[in-house]
Amino acid sequence: MAEQIARNAHLASTVLKTLSNDERSQALDEIYKGLRLNRSVILKANELDMESAVKNNLSSSLIKRLDLSINDKFDTMCQGVLDVAALEDPLNKITLATKLDDGLNLFRLTCPIGVLLIIFESRPEVIANITALAIKSGNSAILKGGKESFHTFKAMSDVINEILIEKTAVPKDAIQLISTREEVGELLKQDQYVDLVIPRGSNELVRNIKSNTKIPVLGHADGICSIYVDEFADIEKAIKIIIDSKTNYPAGCNAAETLLINEKLIKTSAFLQIVEKLIEANVTLHLVPELLSLIPSSLLESKKFIEATEADFHKEFLSYDLAVKPIASTRDAIYHINSHSSKHTDVIITENKENAEIFLKGIDSSGVYWNCSSRFADGFKYGFGTEVGISTNKIHARGPVGLEGLVCYYYQLRGDGHVVGDYVGGGGSKVFKHEKIDIGTLNL
Amino acid sequence: MAEQIARNAHLASTVLKTLSNDERSQALDEIYKGLRLNRSVILKANELDMESAVKNNLSSSLIKRLDLSINDKFDTMCQGVLDVAALEDPLNKITLATKLDDGLNLFRLTCPIGVLLIIFESRPEVIANITALAIKSGNSAILKGGKESFHTFKAMSDVINEILIEKTAVPKDAIQLISTREEVGELLKQDQYVDLVIPRGSNELVRNIKSNTKIPVLGHADGICSIYVDEFADIEKAIKIIIDSKTNYPAGCNAAETLLINEKLIKTSAFLQIVEKLIEANVTLHLVPELLSLIPSSLLESKKFIEATEADFHKEFLSYDLAVKPIASTRDAIYHINSHSSKHTDVIITENKENAEIFLKGIDSSGVYWNCSSRFADGFKYGFGTEVGISTNKIHARGPVGLEGLVCYYYQLRGDGHVVGDYVGGGGSKVFKHEKIDIGTLNL
Repeated sequence: MAEQIARNAHLASTVLKTLSNDERSQALDEIYKGLRLNRSVILKANELDMESAVKNNLSSSLIKRLDLSINDKFDTMCQGVLDVAALEDPLNKITLATKLDDGLNLFRLTCPIGVLLIIFESRPEVIANITALAIKSGNSAILKGGKESFHTFKAMSDVINEILIEKTAVPKDAIQLISTREEVGELLKQDQYVDLVIPRGSNELVRNIKSNTKIPVLGHADGICSIYVDEFADIEKAIKIIIDSKTNYPAGCNAAETLLINEKLIKTSAFLQIVEKLIEANVTLHLVPELLSLIPSSLLESKKFIEATEADFHKEFLSYDLAVKPIASTRDAIYHINSHSSKHTDVIITENKENAEIFLKGIDSSGVYWNCSSRFADGFKYGFGTEVGISTNKIHARGPVGLEGLVCYYYQLRGDGHVVGDYVGGGGSKVFKHEKIDIGTLNL
Repeated sequence: MAEQIARNAHLASTVLKTLSNDERSQALDEIYKGLRLNRSVILKANELDMESAVKNNLSSSLIKRLDLSINDKFDTMCQGVLDVAALEDPLNKITLATKLDDGLNLFRLTCPIGVLLIIFESRPEVIANITALAIKSGNSAILKGGKESFHTFKAMSDVINEILIEKTAVPKDAIQLISTREEVGELLKQDQYVDLVIPRGSNELVRNIKSNTKIPVLGHADGICSIYVDEFADIEKAIKIIIDSKTNYPAGCNAAETLLINEKLIKTSAFLQIVEKLIEANVTLHLVPELLSLIPSSLLESKKFIEATEADFHKEFLSYDLAVKPIASTRDAIYHINSHSSKHTDVIITENKENAEIFLKGIDSSGVYWNCSSRFADGFKYGFGTEVGISTNKIHARGPVGLEGLVCYYYQLRGDGHVVGDYVGGGGSKVFKHEKIDIGTLNL
């Protein structure tokens, strides 16, 4: 069953990848229209999910996330499909062109990855978003949503599949919905057909998937982001950035979890200024003993201080907690971060360009920031239109992943009977020319 | 022990990545000089390996591969290090620049991947090549060579490590040699520190590594390359290309293993022309029954015909064998190849541009060729200077992988106290500008 799903997705992908940008974008226009036409059917299914959610005593925040009828959520979801359709075509871009010899030309072109397995929790509007990104990038997608939103997903995928069959050149198996956890387990074994797994959900979900598949996984299990306040920091900026990074949305993977403060600042009033503002912002500070001993008893009364353990510096709190530690230098901050962070996003606050440049070059994370909040790590804020997630991988795609992260490349070689036996190294005497071809003027 | 090696490699990589292109290239110049200065020491060690090889009755081709003193092999190896030093710097290239808002600028820069674990068999000159590629691309490398060349590897890595310590800014742990299989097994578990495994060797080695690690593996287990002779093929070209693809070096991963011939050609003299030339070139043909029945008895006497099984079309023969099958159309050829090939390199032979374009777009492999030999799939022939291997992965790097495949990218965000709370979506009212910055004029 899982093998059949994966195989069908693969076959669909080989058709989908040959479609033009117009055909792919037109399919998204049809999906946009179809979703709007079927609004009442989808919202009725959504009501069923809401009823079960209430019956099963799910949290009010989860119920709110499930509810597609709130405000303009449904319209925003539909508009998102059109927005993706309007993005620049990520496919068939020539990124390298070389004349190997007369009449023998090498081209590198962007192409889809193939089959994506995307696993996400609750929020039902994600299905429209992912469908749009997959089709626009020429990839087949197998989608698994949370069981809480099963009826909504089912209704939406029925609509999408019907539209694909009736009104578009996109094969219907390009978008498939699966509904059980067992199917996910089996699909994770289909490394012959599934090319990339994208989990969007809890750290536990991502970690679980990473340890149960040979297929590459794009995403992040942890978001342990750090801020280093350099000796040359502007303290006003530092306070603003630390508070935003920690409290703007503490449950976000791009929220700060660790604060490193240059030792020289500890001895000045700057340290207590920062501490006071964080306490006012309702943050609980996990301080190493040498910092804890500096806190005046008047402040200790706030009960917002905890002695930090080594483990606190490896922790994603996802709450109003922050681990704090003094650090001797920019180099030491880099060392601490590279050995503790999750390679997500890390920040230096300094007015000293030299230290900033050392930090920007030395940190081994997908985002390295100077004098701004870690919370900017996000596909929308980066201007990607939308994102499929944030990657802490070291290869392929890093940081917020938009359409570009869903493509790879391949080589075309166009000849006229050329064989290797004629060339030096292959038994012959011809020599390769290896001349760059101007990509600007190319039309294959 | 393995953890220590991996950790040290990681720490070295965080220093190496901050070095300038001059510092990295200068290190390669020093290695070049050091290897030449220590020629006699290295060749003496190489003699020890040769003696054991003879004692252990290794094959003459293996002994030849081991021998560093043959012709100008030693000099060519040293020159290769200088050639890599002279390549364009793959690091710190700005590939995206966006003004998010006044004073808040986003840059995407190429960067090293981190730590490479490279496993290869016998040929001792590879250590110099890989060392050069790793240092030039700012990556640490842990190298494991074949046990047959242990003494040569040891002597070369001693020289390289001494040079790194004494004469360069590259930390010595950037290049580490390991010598036992047990260490490889343990290193494959160090996914915290090792970012990419590159196996260069037998299919068995690669497959074994792929199923024993969570670390991404760059390489190919199989090279099942196909040639499709379209109904509009020029038969002279077809014959030339098929023979080159099959016989130029049958043990190469880019040799052809499957020949698909358009049905229309089967009914003409073209089919027997192709067959005759292949028999003359000493190729054994595995023909499906309907083709076998067309072979005249005069040809059958050559004993070069075998009835093909379905398994033959999934096989990498690595010999003078070729599986042959008729196919109805370009679309069918694409379907056959996408479900049988190993995503390495596949070829169409046709004078019909339309069919060629369909093939070039529809085949799901890292190399798709029109009217030329599959044997061109090679980093040197592509003009990459050198390669670390050929990848059949669907993400990150595909086809022959040169320096560019050893880098990834990260995002720098440079602000001036910017926080998300001031922007729409984060709680504020400011709107992102998302203006493209001209990369040509940039100087960070």
